[in-house]
Amino acid sequence: MLRAGIVVTGTEVLTGRVADANGPWLSEHLREVGVDVAHICVCGDRKEDLLAQLQFLTDQDVDIIVTSGGLGPTADDMTLPTVAEFAGTTLIFDADLEAAIMDRLRPMANRWENVDWEALRVGIAKQALVPAQGQVLDPVGTAPGAIMSTDKVVIVVLPGPPHELQRMWPSAVDAAPFRALVGEDAAAIEQTTLRLYGITEPDIAETLRLAEDDLGSLAALEITTCLRRSEVEVVTRFEPSARSVWESLYEFIHSRHGSALFSSDGWTVDEVVAGLLHGRRLAVAESCTAGLLGARLADVPGSSAYFLGGIISYANDVKIGQLHVDPQLLADHGAVSPQVAEAMADGALAALGADIAVSTTGVAGPGGGSADKPVGTVCFCVKTAAGERAELRVVIPGNRNQIRERATTVALHLLRRLLQR
Amino acid sequence: MLRAGIVVTGTEVLTGRVADANGPWLSEHLREVGVDVAHICVCGDRKEDLLAQLQFLTDQDVDIIVTSGGLGPTADDMTLPTVAEFAGTTLIFDADLEAAIMDRLRPMANRWENVDWEALRVGIAKQALVPAQGQVLDPVGTAPGAIMSTDKVVIVVLPGPPHELQRMWPSAVDAAPFRALVGEDAAAIEQTTLRLYGITEPDIAETLRLAEDDLGSLAALEITTCLRRSEVEVVTRFEPSARSVWESLYEFIHSRHGSALFSSDGWTVDEVVAGLLHGRRLAVAESCTAGLLGARLADVPGSSAYFLGGIISYANDVKIGQLHVDPQLLADHGAVSPQVAEAMADGALAALGADIAVSTTGVAGPGGGSADKPVGTVCFCVKTAAGERAELRVVIPGNRNQIRERATTVALHLLRRLLQR
Repeated sequence: MLRAGIVVTGTEVLTGRVADANGPWLSEHLREVGVDVAHICVCGDRKEDLLAQLQFLTDQDVDIIVTSGGLGPTADDMTLPTVAEFAGTTLIFDADLEAAIMDRLRPMANRWENVDWEALRVGIAKQALVPAQGQVLDPVGTAPGAIMSTDKVVIVVLPGPPHELQRMWPSAVDAAPFRALVGEDAAAIEQTTLRLYGITEPDIAETLRLAEDDLGSLAALEITTCLRRSEVEVVTRFEPSARSVWESLYEFIHSRHGSALFSSDGWTVDEVVAGLLHGRRLAVAESCTAGLLGARLADVPGSSAYFLGGIISYANDVKIGQLHVDPQLLADHGAVSPQVAEAMADGALAALGADIAVSTTGVAGPGGGSADKPVGTVCFCVKTAAGERAELRVVIPGNRNQIRERATTVALHLLRRLLQR
Repeated sequence: MLRAGIVVTGTEVLTGRVADANGPWLSEHLREVGVDVAHICVCGDRKEDLLAQLQFLTDQDVDIIVTSGGLGPTADDMTLPTVAEFAGTTLIFDADLEAAIMDRLRPMANRWENVDWEALRVGIAKQALVPAQGQVLDPVGTAPGAIMSTDKVVIVVLPGPPHELQRMWPSAVDAAPFRALVGEDAAAIEQTTLRLYGITEPDIAETLRLAEDDLGSLAALEITTCLRRSEVEVVTRFEPSARSVWESLYEFIHSRHGSALFSSDGWTVDEVVAGLLHGRRLAVAESCTAGLLGARLADVPGSSAYFLGGIISYANDVKIGQLHVDPQLLADHGAVSPQVAEAMADGALAALGADIAVSTTGVAGPGGGSADKPVGTVCFCVKTAAGERAELRVVIPGNRNQIRERATTVALHLLRRLLQR
């Protein structure tokens, strides 16, 4: 299996001012051509740090290094000369490239006010320097990329702006030095994603231990588990030859956690619910989530086909006025109660003419908790116009934002379970 | 100047499935205590890769290494034993810590269905292993952190979930090994934040150039500008002795951009609006934002004092039925129009008995755009029961999520401007 290292350059990324988008993107796209990323390194615009990372990755026996950034016209952009130095080559001036970059820039520059043409020319001349030995990748913006090789590693040099890097990527993969390495029919690594709701990370750890006892070694699979948005996610990566090992593991997990396993094709609960809502008319009645659930439902493109909208009944007056919750019910049980949650769902069904409704009412904190209903207590109700009902009362851990965010996940799963009955 | 390296562990980050938030966050917070980050390295859940990065950073003469992630209960979480091996110490079992973690988990686990207590115990026992030599950082969730040292470097081991890492950070900084390195007066640097809305980054760059001409050198100030949530943020860091330079710069910026400068004390627009809404009764009427605006208003603790709730009128039927928008208005001008935006605000005022209402209606895409109303077109209206009105039609760039997210910011600023009249 080929191994790669990614070097992301740029002081703005290193200092945390700008979030890096290129490392994750490159990692996914290297995997598509059968290359496994071992390390991603971020360094500032400092030559010695960049050289150190190139040497480190070479020492780690990676086959390919991909760099992003540091190809601009200003003095702090020094990736190309630094990589050239590392690869033992020099930069030479390419007059045709200079002319091509100038042609590209002139129409833009003509529209700018107060263009400093001399500064522009100096910058372009810098960007028209290309490695004497290696391959130049045509610029997408004004910066060309390059591929250089040492006796140990192929180094692909790409620009920093994500849209330029992504548009240059196909030509890098098609270039001869890259192709020679990955082969024409690079066996892509397969990746599967399972999502489970209602079990914990220790549960899945136990299952994986038992699977190894039962099925024999799972060493051909790289399995990672993580808890995300209250769901356990199991991602498995393997070479095509290990597919049968994966299938046995899948059967094993399915037999132990069938009811918790809600997605085995990478679908999120949002997408599963969207599929189940086809042909329905959904409304929400939100108190503590105050719109988060509606916003999440509408995140899915095309959701207008089944999502009508709803009522954000943050104040009790709105629960009474818009959702027709009986004031006596509020007085008797409090706003955070299964009774009020159901009345809210009923109110949303009636007011919006929906055939299914979801409600949330809870104590998001930091204030408002009691012994009976501590911060994090949330009541949910899903109800259909035909009278089917699912309800839940839970205490969700976390701070105000986490409680509200997690409550939307709980609501979606309650909705899913009723729709899958 | 002290130098640091950051190691972010986790196959989910390395493969690009999860965007890393900890590297940038740690980089900013290390800078606050006078430590410059030289390298950020990302590795998967593989012991040899983690060891290689620790060695690389040590070879680069960093003074501090901070790791994030890999402290969970499952077998793929191996940061603590690996760092212990690197630091030449071992892990020992801490019975008190085990009991403390169990106490923390039990109330949650009691509410889960089908808890596998044996699996839970195995996981907790793993998390109760702490370095024999070094300092333990109390868990925020269930995973303790740790500080270990070699003869060359101090290694701070923190959990991966960003909220746990961020909450554990102060105790790491206060711990003796860290304090010994950075010194007692490391936190003396002042930092100010200005927020401006309605100007661009080049505008502020120009202002800073002119300020330097006018006021003399600003070298005593470390100024960074960035565009965040459609706002320009100017963060300035300086030693207390440079406070008068900062004050001159502040006056200069204020004189040029007074109307755009809405916060000079670090307050967000959310907090500014919350302050202005004191004593009011606010309602929302949301179409394209589908609850995002309500959710954002309710993000502020105490918002129930002025935020009543609102109507998510995603479907036109809901605009008509709940907000009493005239069907003829929809037919004549379309749902995305200033006329319908105003009718929605009127409807929210009336239905909820509010004294101020905000509405949004737009084309979030990817479909639904036209030559007249391209994707990103959003109409807003803020209206009071007394008849004051502010309205806006804009075309917001970005994808579906960006358009909806940015629309909430635009709505908050429109609300702020009307309230500040």
